[in-house]
Amino acid sequence: MKIGKSKSPLYVELYEQIKKMIQEGKYLENEKLPSKRKLGASLKISPLTVDAAYQQLIAEGYVYSIEKSGYYVSKQVEVLENIKKEKYKVSYDTNKKAINYQYEFKTNVVDTSLFPNATWAKLSREVLSENHHEMLNITNPKGMEPLRKEIAKYLELYRGMKVNEEQIIIGSGTTSLISMLIEILGRNKHYAIEDPGYSKIYHLYKGNDVELSLVSVDDGGLRVDALIQSKAKIVHITPSHQFPTGVVMPIQRRSELLNWAISSNNHYIIEDDYDSEFRFQGKPIPALQGLDEHQKVIYMNTFTKTLAPSFRMSYMVLPEKLLNDYQEISSHHGCTVPNFEQYIMYKFMHGGYFERHINRMKNHYRQKIDIILKTLQNEPHLQIKGHETGLHFLMTIDTDKSEKEIIEEAKKHEINVSGLSMYYMNQKNKNTKPTLVIGYSGIKTQDINLYMSKLITLLK
Amino acid sequence: MKIGKSKSPLYVELYEQIKKMIQEGKYLENEKLPSKRKLGASLKISPLTVDAAYQQLIAEGYVYSIEKSGYYVSKQVEVLENIKKEKYKVSYDTNKKAINYQYEFKTNVVDTSLFPNATWAKLSREVLSENHHEMLNITNPKGMEPLRKEIAKYLELYRGMKVNEEQIIIGSGTTSLISMLIEILGRNKHYAIEDPGYSKIYHLYKGNDVELSLVSVDDGGLRVDALIQSKAKIVHITPSHQFPTGVVMPIQRRSELLNWAISSNNHYIIEDDYDSEFRFQGKPIPALQGLDEHQKVIYMNTFTKTLAPSFRMSYMVLPEKLLNDYQEISSHHGCTVPNFEQYIMYKFMHGGYFERHINRMKNHYRQKIDIILKTLQNEPHLQIKGHETGLHFLMTIDTDKSEKEIIEEAKKHEINVSGLSMYYMNQKNKNTKPTLVIGYSGIKTQDINLYMSKLITLLK
Repeated sequence: MKIGKSKSPLYVELYEQIKKMIQEGKYLENEKLPSKRKLGASLKISPLTVDAAYQQLIAEGYVYSIEKSGYYVSKQVEVLENIKKEKYKVSYDTNKKAINYQYEFKTNVVDTSLFPNATWAKLSREVLSENHHEMLNITNPKGMEPLRKEIAKYLELYRGMKVNEEQIIIGSGTTSLISMLIEILGRNKHYAIEDPGYSKIYHLYKGNDVELSLVSVDDGGLRVDALIQSKAKIVHITPSHQFPTGVVMPIQRRSELLNWAISSNNHYIIEDDYDSEFRFQGKPIPALQGLDEHQKVIYMNTFTKTLAPSFRMSYMVLPEKLLNDYQEISSHHGCTVPNFEQYIMYKFMHGGYFERHINRMKNHYRQKIDIILKTLQNEPHLQIKGHETGLHFLMTIDTDKSEKEIIEEAKKHEINVSGLSMYYMNQKNKNTKPTLVIGYSGIKTQDINLYMSKLITLLK
Repeated sequence: MKIGKSKSPLYVELYEQIKKMIQEGKYLENEKLPSKRKLGASLKISPLTVDAAYQQLIAEGYVYSIEKSGYYVSKQVEVLENIKKEKYKVSYDTNKKAINYQYEFKTNVVDTSLFPNATWAKLSREVLSENHHEMLNITNPKGMEPLRKEIAKYLELYRGMKVNEEQIIIGSGTTSLISMLIEILGRNKHYAIEDPGYSKIYHLYKGNDVELSLVSVDDGGLRVDALIQSKAKIVHITPSHQFPTGVVMPIQRRSELLNWAISSNNHYIIEDDYDSEFRFQGKPIPALQGLDEHQKVIYMNTFTKTLAPSFRMSYMVLPEKLLNDYQEISSHHGCTVPNFEQYIMYKFMHGGYFERHINRMKNHYRQKIDIILKTLQNEPHLQIKGHETGLHFLMTIDTDKSEKEIIEEAKKHEINVSGLSMYYMNQKNKNTKPTLVIGYSGIKTQDINLYMSKLITLLK
């Protein structure tokens, strides 16, 4: 045995070598190892080094010791080596292969050039310099109280809701909030979502193995008659700006939906209010939650659209009657958002920066929409709708071509835009006219004319 | 109608008043509203203000317009008001009621006085000043690649694992990682966990509605014979430092467990390596994953113990054969950790700060353990074990009192310590001697003697 040739400490090297010998069967079960003094002398190292190696071998179970006698090799268990090892060819770059087109009309991005970097940096420095040590250990499963208070204020002022901060649960995204909700409401319940809708929501419920119905959408949003027919108990909807059709659910439909919810103890509405902050005419449509006097609406929103997707901060507002059920699962569903981030966000809201930021973003996006509307003035064959709210709209095309043909042709011209069809999970619910779902939030203002002219030329 | 008395814009006030009149039935279905000019003149406001109010009423569905004719009230749907509103008494301060004892021996905290605040602040400033705008929109579901590369390096160096960064999935905690895993492995599978164990893990699996077996633990950790008997397919274990018994699983048991895993295509081991970084004698016990040549071990770890609980950063290492299944769920399980945090963590690891921090923490905790061992030198009736690794140990007491009596007496003396019994989910698996689970990581070094003398006096 030679040691002193590797970069590891001597005792580690010795431990590795003896371990290998035991694994290879060079030492037999119950065979005595040389004494520490003897082995140390022969290797010209301290008996203490040998002791360290022996202790490690004991800790891992390769060796046992008998007091006043010495060190012995333990019985080894062979790992079945004759079992065929499966070889898997994994293409590791699955995520990297996304093609980038010259003209992207994505719906899942925001204009990050407007991100208030300086303010955020300032507030981060403040939080870090305040040395909140207690903040490092104590995490409230609902999220930090000061932030929840700010959110409650915001919801009352801008969304017409009455909310106690104890009803608010902060989470790192829709995924974690919905998995919590399903634990609270029951995995054996029957859920429904809108069709067309956001495919992520579909996969989320499917991944949670709940019974799921697809309910069609008309000019008033989710069809309540179809919901009743589906026999679902809990429905997930986007009433302020249906995704992707952009429909704002009118008061009549909201009342019908609330009546449906009140009609049974087990009925609940999950109101997904993902981009209602950006309403470009008048004031935001009040949340459905604000109309609900029977504790039937679970409200959900995110900072993804108002700040940036990478922030991973969402929240839900539970009706008071569900809070006891929440309490029971809160011990294993701790808050998933780092306290630092939460505290910065609290300062951002409390200092009025959030309100200012939303107004700035709204003006900015309104400018973009105005430019887009101008480019479409002389294009009567291109009808748009759903552009009064949110960061995307629908464009219906009067043409003989199919939607699929249009999208493929677009790709050839380096234009990436999606068709409404791909948002239908049940193809039976599909409408017929070719329609594009156009996201404009990621396009720079100075580029909008160019992007639109490319698109309009293509659709001539 | 009087307007101009509220703080809202005039049009909002007008909109609110008309809406109220419609809701109260003062306007009937299809009744014509006054023209914008007439109403404006009578209220002495601009017809443009009236128009803004009417547009908002239209957007929300209260009013409809007929071109060249005027504005009419829509048909309203009444919300069933005669349904009894349920009243719930919710005690909002459930979370606040946690009693604070003078002498806390908690297992779920770290010594935050050692948190490298200055370094973390410096790296945060760097990340913020570098203006990574692309970081705001693009989020890789697995987590940021540079951070995953650093984790892979770390695991190879310190845990004896061979890992490609594409096998690593970053998540905001065990909760989100396990719910992902259950989607990948199947909710219809039979899972097993250790008993005694971490009750959060028990509730996590239960909350996911999977079949769950409790497998007892002996001096070698999880009993493989009991695992085989349970017929479970997937087992979640803590081999490096069983929680709460502190047992290090010896190589023989590890080999047996791997043989169990290899024996069926559907068998998997989830290795929860939550605090193996802190081994106070010799080097860390190599991870079970490093012994596995058959893609049977899913490795899981967290930065909760090494940094602080509030960081919400964990990761798992998937065998390559599960990566395709992961790919399918990655679209609805996006990464739950903010990019900012991930990038700071990357810099923290890449700059060598993480390694230094762990060494510093380890020395610090070792000091604490040494003090504790000294206080127990003359207390032969108090036997401790599991203190060589991690941030808690077991103390078995030679006494006629029951564990419950001891703990209640401790509480009277302002000492908060938990008993081993409470970690047993199946009381049949319970051992008999009164045993305390002692967490010391949150106690300040200068206070340890005091805390221990209080405890020792109590146990006399």
